[in-house]
Amino acid sequence: MVQGTANWNTKQNQEWLQEYVEDWISFYRKHTKEGKVASYIPLLAEANPDHLGISIFGANGMTLRAGEVDIPFTIQSISKVISFIVACMERGVGYMLDRVDVEPTGEAFNSIMHLEMRKVEKPFNPFVNAGAISVTSMLPGRTSDEKLEPMFQLLDRILGYRPQINVDVYESERDSSMRNRAIGYYLLETGFLESDLNITLETYFKQCSIEITVDDLAQIGLILANDGEDPKNQQEIIPRQVARIAKALMLTCGMYDASGKFATYVGVPAKSGVSGGIIAVAPPRVRDEELPFVDGCGIGVFGPALDDKGNSIAGIRLLRHIASQWDLSIF
Amino acid sequence: MVQGTANWNTKQNQEWLQEYVEDWISFYRKHTKEGKVASYIPLLAEANPDHLGISIFGANGMTLRAGEVDIPFTIQSISKVISFIVACMERGVGYMLDRVDVEPTGEAFNSIMHLEMRKVEKPFNPFVNAGAISVTSMLPGRTSDEKLEPMFQLLDRILGYRPQINVDVYESERDSSMRNRAIGYYLLETGFLESDLNITLETYFKQCSIEITVDDLAQIGLILANDGEDPKNQQEIIPRQVARIAKALMLTCGMYDASGKFATYVGVPAKSGVSGGIIAVAPPRVRDEELPFVDGCGIGVFGPALDDKGNSIAGIRLLRHIASQWDLSIF
Amino acid sequence: MVQGTANWNTKQNQEWLQEYVEDWISFYRKHTKEGKVASYIPLLAEANPDHLGISIFGANGMTLRAGEVDIPFTIQSISKVISFIVACMERGVGYMLDRVDVEPTGEAFNSIMHLEMRKVEKPFNPFVNAGAISVTSMLPGRTSDEKLEPMFQLLDRILGYRPQINVDVYESERDSSMRNRAIGYYLLETGFLESDLNITLETYFKQCSIEITVDDLAQIGLILANDGEDPKNQQEIIPRQVARIAKALMLTCGMYDASGKFATYVGVPAKSGVSGGIIAVAPPRVRDEELPFVDGCGIGVFGPALDDKGNSIAGIRLLRHIASQWDLSIF
Amino acid sequence: MVQGTANWNTKQNQEWLQEYVEDWISFYRKHTKEGKVASYIPLLAEANPDHLGISIFGANGMTLRAGEVDIPFTIQSISKVISFIVACMERGVGYMLDRVDVEPTGEAFNSIMHLEMRKVEKPFNPFVNAGAISVTSMLPGRTSDEKLEPMFQLLDRILGYRPQINVDVYESERDSSMRNRAIGYYLLETGFLESDLNITLETYFKQCSIEITVDDLAQIGLILANDGEDPKNQQEIIPRQVARIAKALMLTCGMYDASGKFATYVGVPAKSGVSGGIIAVAPPRVRDEELPFVDGCGIGVFGPALDDKGNSIAGIRLLRHIASQWDLSIF
Repeated sequence: MVQGTANWNTKQNQEWLQEYVEDWISFYRKHTKEGKVASYIPLLAEANPDHLGISIFGANGMTLRAGEVDIPFTIQSISKVISFIVACMERGVGYMLDRVDVEPTGEAFNSIMHLEMRKVEKPFNPFVNAGAISVTSMLPGRTSDEKLEPMFQLLDRILGYRPQINVDVYESERDSSMRNRAIGYYLLETGFLESDLNITLETYFKQCSIEITVDDLAQIGLILANDGEDPKNQQEIIPRQVARIAKALMLTCGMYDASGKFATYVGVPAKSGVSGGIIAVAPPRVRDEELPFVDGCGIGVFGPALDDKGNSIAGIRLLRHIASQWDLSIF
Repeated sequence: MVQGTANWNTKQNQEWLQEYVEDWISFYRKHTKEGKVASYIPLLAEANPDHLGISIFGANGMTLRAGEVDIPFTIQSISKVISFIVACMERGVGYMLDRVDVEPTGEAFNSIMHLEMRKVEKPFNPFVNAGAISVTSMLPGRTSDEKLEPMFQLLDRILGYRPQINVDVYESERDSSMRNRAIGYYLLETGFLESDLNITLETYFKQCSIEITVDDLAQIGLILANDGEDPKNQQEIIPRQVARIAKALMLTCGMYDASGKFATYVGVPAKSGVSGGIIAVAPPRVRDEELPFVDGCGIGVFGPALDDKGNSIAGIRLLRHIASQWDLSIF
Repeated sequence: MVQGTANWNTKQNQEWLQEYVEDWISFYRKHTKEGKVASYIPLLAEANPDHLGISIFGANGMTLRAGEVDIPFTIQSISKVISFIVACMERGVGYMLDRVDVEPTGEAFNSIMHLEMRKVEKPFNPFVNAGAISVTSMLPGRTSDEKLEPMFQLLDRILGYRPQINVDVYESERDSSMRNRAIGYYLLETGFLESDLNITLETYFKQCSIEITVDDLAQIGLILANDGEDPKNQQEIIPRQVARIAKALMLTCGMYDASGKFATYVGVPAKSGVSGGIIAVAPPRVRDEELPFVDGCGIGVFGPALDDKGNSIAGIRLLRHIASQWDLSIF
Repeated sequence: MVQGTANWNTKQNQEWLQEYVEDWISFYRKHTKEGKVASYIPLLAEANPDHLGISIFGANGMTLRAGEVDIPFTIQSISKVISFIVACMERGVGYMLDRVDVEPTGEAFNSIMHLEMRKVEKPFNPFVNAGAISVTSMLPGRTSDEKLEPMFQLLDRILGYRPQINVDVYESERDSSMRNRAIGYYLLETGFLESDLNITLETYFKQCSIEITVDDLAQIGLILANDGEDPKNQQEIIPRQVARIAKALMLTCGMYDASGKFATYVGVPAKSGVSGGIIAVAPPRVRDEELPFVDGCGIGVFGPALDDKGNSIAGIRLLRHIASQWDLSIF
């Protein structure tokens, strides 16, 4: 498709690719009409369903951005990747994997039923709400500030700045998410909650309310694509083992109960959130060197109109198209 | 760990690696004591639970074999990979993916419950029994011989010989697997069976009873690792798109309800069967060139003592160790 | 409401009551528009959805009939009461209750899921399909004719004639009910089938296809209301213990997953079938002697337009009204 | 068995019957060894598992008492009958039945799964925890005292005294029942909670902690047996319609997921609690006048050793024996 040379990171190539990406945004924006913004958290319902933005950060330094890239949004479920990584760094991978399973569920992200069906066993995986709340309870600290601190430190190291919590969204989540409280009490009863429930939920709602942009997601994705190292200076930000487990989990469980379809049709580790964000991770691959981003890239997408699984409806189609055009799949 | 040169495929290296693999077989063989051979098909119960064998075929031509490598066994659920590939080749990928979903279930391979819980929808994926029987029903042909023919032709192209059906195992399965008949009638009622039920089940039981060895599994795995091409002559045996979808499905759904754990701890597409076979696919990867099999390899394992999910208990540990030592994970 | 004397069974009273019942039929017939005839067995779909008929046989000899009382229809699930009674008579109550549970399920009559969720346990109750097919398998006999014979003998003793199997319906059921075959194989695998599966299903489909009328249902109901004795001559037709267990089961499990509502709003043991029949049993009660049928009665209803639970939509409303007017509830 | 005259309420008969009941207590007390006291509320675990007591109050004025009849215990789930009756009296039967279903579940009393499986629908019945908490939320009042007041007033009218809340048990329940909080938040999210959650749970835990004796249960049972009227003075304490609906619900849903078995083997409306109490209601019946209690009776049982369903293990056997000996079944 795209023609190029061994070194893709030329200005000319970048311009070509930039044009493509802008065309694709225009094309896939029409699919936003087929989705709906999340309504279960009142403030999320105010998002503009027409928005669609993408940011792609290559390990080779190339950056592509198109659409609404400057609109901040709350990270929501994508924070589950961050909290799981931080918990692994703070408590050890073994500790975490003893306490949270890593199996896809086939069910919706906020399922309580699955907890009950496997009574004495641990939550299915760290990316369903039950598992994520359990993970948050395992973060060290006695207050939500203490628990959030290592998450913010990690984000600061990755992004070069310390993102903020959107207090309005936090309060809206805190006051409306009764199902997460139900899950919390269920975890408390079954022994999978390791901190005070209110502190845990406060932390969880706050971590979901961290405000980021598609650039931030692309940058986090790039670090994961590079196995936890910053490609600019080869410094380890996330331990290699943790980064790789996170990617395995993103591939099998990252897109709610559409994870299998995303793995099949797109083929890269990814995680979505109900505010319309998606982080996608394309590792380096052994392929035709004329393809762009063969050294890996991170991708951030924002498109608040969601499909019935809770994933950005236009974002998924856009990612599928890009993955297909540039052969990003890990398979 | 293993020292080497840019060109790994030297006699000396092969000897070193061969020794390692033999040591690992010796070490992991003791775990066979912790499992049990499958008993639901009477003939499978006669397998020797102490057996453990492995065969590794590299894209670079290197071959490693250790343990019981010459014992033929029936392919069982690993045939679901073959039938899905053949159905995609015969009917088209789109046709198949419209009719069988590609989501992991979180439930056991022979679950009926999941069919009912998602009433009007298609089977969860081609590797649960319901999905596999549905796939078999979509193979062209009006007799089981006609339906099996393209599977045998594909195997013949890959293996260089036409494997045989173990008639005793086939008859044993046919006469004992009442749950598969239950699933079959359920599919018939819900409209996901596209051939006569008896013909479909006869085909299904026959495809499960094809007799192969770990060498055969390693060879199939090698073709898949190489995206469907034979690395010896670059001939396409399986269309690239089909091979890659098969790998995505193997990663998310290949190891029953332990697929998520296998993806996390081992990290390569794989498929197991209740006779104790596992096929694992390690694609080429961008890594330290001094690691063995960086150009990809296929692995066949045989270890009939199973864990409670139905996977070879020693085989999984052996694969986890090898994947860790040689960094085979796709993540 | 209805005025009367100590002896209700006068010609004048009967005329008054007859008028009421005819009025009620006229009134409730309009509700037939809200339902649909069963379609899963092709021949049942040919029933006239406007039909509504009722027959009431009192222990005091009074008979009331209104609406379409002469249209024969197949007994369908109401046969589960007969086969359970016969199996108790032939095999003993203890034998049966050891092998089939007596718990309501909260789920639809043809649920497979419930079997799986309680894996090693017996079917929930004799009135879900799984339990009923298991009961039929426990009837003595090696052919369907031998198995059906004691059912026909019992019906002959109760009705004074030997009803016929509607062969067209039988063949239609036999050839279309794939879900019952699925259930049958499931029972076979889990050890709850005590005869050959094909013979059992043949028997089951035949028993469901026995053709009766509302008079027949009223007469069977009357015998049950009278604890198994014929009120005309005090002869025991069904053992008292068996008749009473059957009534307890009809109350808790007789109306599919609307059994609780029927018990609450109507309050008499009853059993429905998808052809639109309902048998209701009003035992003698300690109440105002001026109410009709204080000595008990049997009621047969026919109304093929069904609600979404599979019960006659107008029939249930009619019964609710009559039970309320005449205070038939056992509570 | 027991011989007698038309008027059973003689001193001699009472002595005979009293001896029988004492014998039966001695005989069935040994079954207490097969059960376990409830442990999920810490204070309940302190009950003496050997205890077994019964109190029988006849409509004819006859009273029989045997075993540990003077030990107060908390009413627990039996309070669900009281709160449902009071809610029906305060809000109307129609209001309540529009908001809580009346179907047995086939599942354990504290199931969350069932709520989820029937997503948008109301709780299964007022006797599972979800339904009972929803019912309590519908009681008028803005504090737990206001909500409890009509319950205490009803109990006062029935019992002639105002029972007390066991504060230690209340605090133990309040502080330990995380699953009920989970259910509460679930109800809040799904719209089936009509009061503040904390007030509702406080009320619910308090109503469960009301301390009563077997005499109290027998007296409540007697009023229900008599359709809500006090047999001494024919005063209506509970509206007839409400009393009868309560009995229908007790029969179909009163004994957790053993309700069907209790209906089949014992055959009277009953409700159990995890402290070991059972209330059973034997209405007047048309039977041999020489049987005792043909005019109806209420029975209270206390036996804190429970079976695996949460019912008094010896209490159920004792009731089954008595019901069989005196033919108390409503069927």
